[in-house]
Amino acid sequence: MLTTEARRKILEENQAAAAELAQRFARSGTLVVDLISSPGSGKTALLEETAHVLGRKLRMACIVGDVATERDAERLRKAGLPARQIVTNGACHLDARVVRDALDAADFGPLDVLFIENVGNLVCPASYALGEDFKLVLLSVTEGGDKPFKYPGIFSKAAVAVITKSDLLPFVRFDVESARAEIRTLRPDAQILLTSVIDGTGMDSWCALLSNELAAKRKRAQSA
Amino acid sequence: MLTTEARRKILEENQAAAAELAQRFARSGTLVVDLISSPGSGKTALLEETAHVLGRKLRMACIVGDVATERDAERLRKAGLPARQIVTNGACHLDARVVRDALDAADFGPLDVLFIENVGNLVCPASYALGEDFKLVLLSVTEGGDKPFKYPGIFSKAAVAVITKSDLLPFVRFDVESARAEIRTLRPDAQILLTSVIDGTGMDSWCALLSNELAAKRKRAQSA
Repeated sequence: MLTTEARRKILEENQAAAAELAQRFARSGTLVVDLISSPGSGKTALLEETAHVLGRKLRMACIVGDVATERDAERLRKAGLPARQIVTNGACHLDARVVRDALDAADFGPLDVLFIENVGNLVCPASYALGEDFKLVLLSVTEGGDKPFKYPGIFSKAAVAVITKSDLLPFVRFDVESARAEIRTLRPDAQILLTSVIDGTGMDSWCALLSNELAAKRKRAQSA
Repeated sequence: MLTTEARRKILEENQAAAAELAQRFARSGTLVVDLISSPGSGKTALLEETAHVLGRKLRMACIVGDVATERDAERLRKAGLPARQIVTNGACHLDARVVRDALDAADFGPLDVLFIENVGNLVCPASYALGEDFKLVLLSVTEGGDKPFKYPGIFSKAAVAVITKSDLLPFVRFDVESARAEIRTLRPDAQILLTSVIDGTGMDSWCALLSNELAAKRKRAQSA
């Protein structure tokens, strides 16, 4: 495995690049959300639905990371969300430099919200800042409610936790309250949402959260 | 990110340790299966069910890797499968040295089958040999059938692919034939099973596969 020293150096370099990105997003007044989950938890589906609901109200775009294929960017563009795919060729997370390069290449124009859909992985992406306002972790009810304590890194770092696929609750063993309690133990101030893009559960709350966070960021910028 | 050179060195060192493990397992006639999947795809559930079905017939044990908690080892022991937990403290995969150390510490005695339940992750564990006879990748139907091409590393390396949670097929969009086709494109000789531990689908095929692979390994050892 990687030595502690090598790991520290990589993270420090990333931190510097992330700080530059954060300044850039502060100047442009763009809210930036870093979405992290296991493969198949519903990151792309949540963004497709967000594009349908908020697409006329907010200028949004997405940078999406995958080990291989352009599939997610294609899905997002079809939903009306401008998207730039980063193919990591094996790397299990995005870092601030590849996000910056993708952003420059994409040339999205002025944005209210930029989503960064990270590589499907609950471990690696947790340690990498990308200049985001907050990390958002998704957990689908089919994965099991024991996941927060098993992946404490990401569940303590993510200010927002979205429990997805609530339409499948009748068919699986998943205790929403116990999952909420584990998340709150790791991150007491976490905003936790229960959602389904199939029956629309929680989509109003999610869209309100986004609008509120964007307004709060712009208010902070004005008073700075 | 890690430099190519540093990565090459880490993988070479791992390969040497894995080769030693493989020799050890050849001498003891132990079939070793490295289970890899996203978090929540059903690795532990498959092993619990395997213990119930084959526990009296085969001497089996499990080394289980997680970023945090002893939860999976506790579940497996409750199902009658001797289990040793490796807590990786952040690392996104097991390597051959930590497996060797865990094996020495666990002192399972003679084994017919050793399962290595890797950290829940479709990316990192694919590159690390652990002395196993084969890697087994699990994909639950709730994750979506587009995953093989998105994670070609593991789906090309795994000789066995187990599609899990087939009991949920009526409630999700998952095309079994299209997923099978993607897997076969990446790995033409893959053995592909469709399973559910809830209704028992595919458990006979899975147990037969294990018994056949064990018999084949012992036959190869005799003729060597």
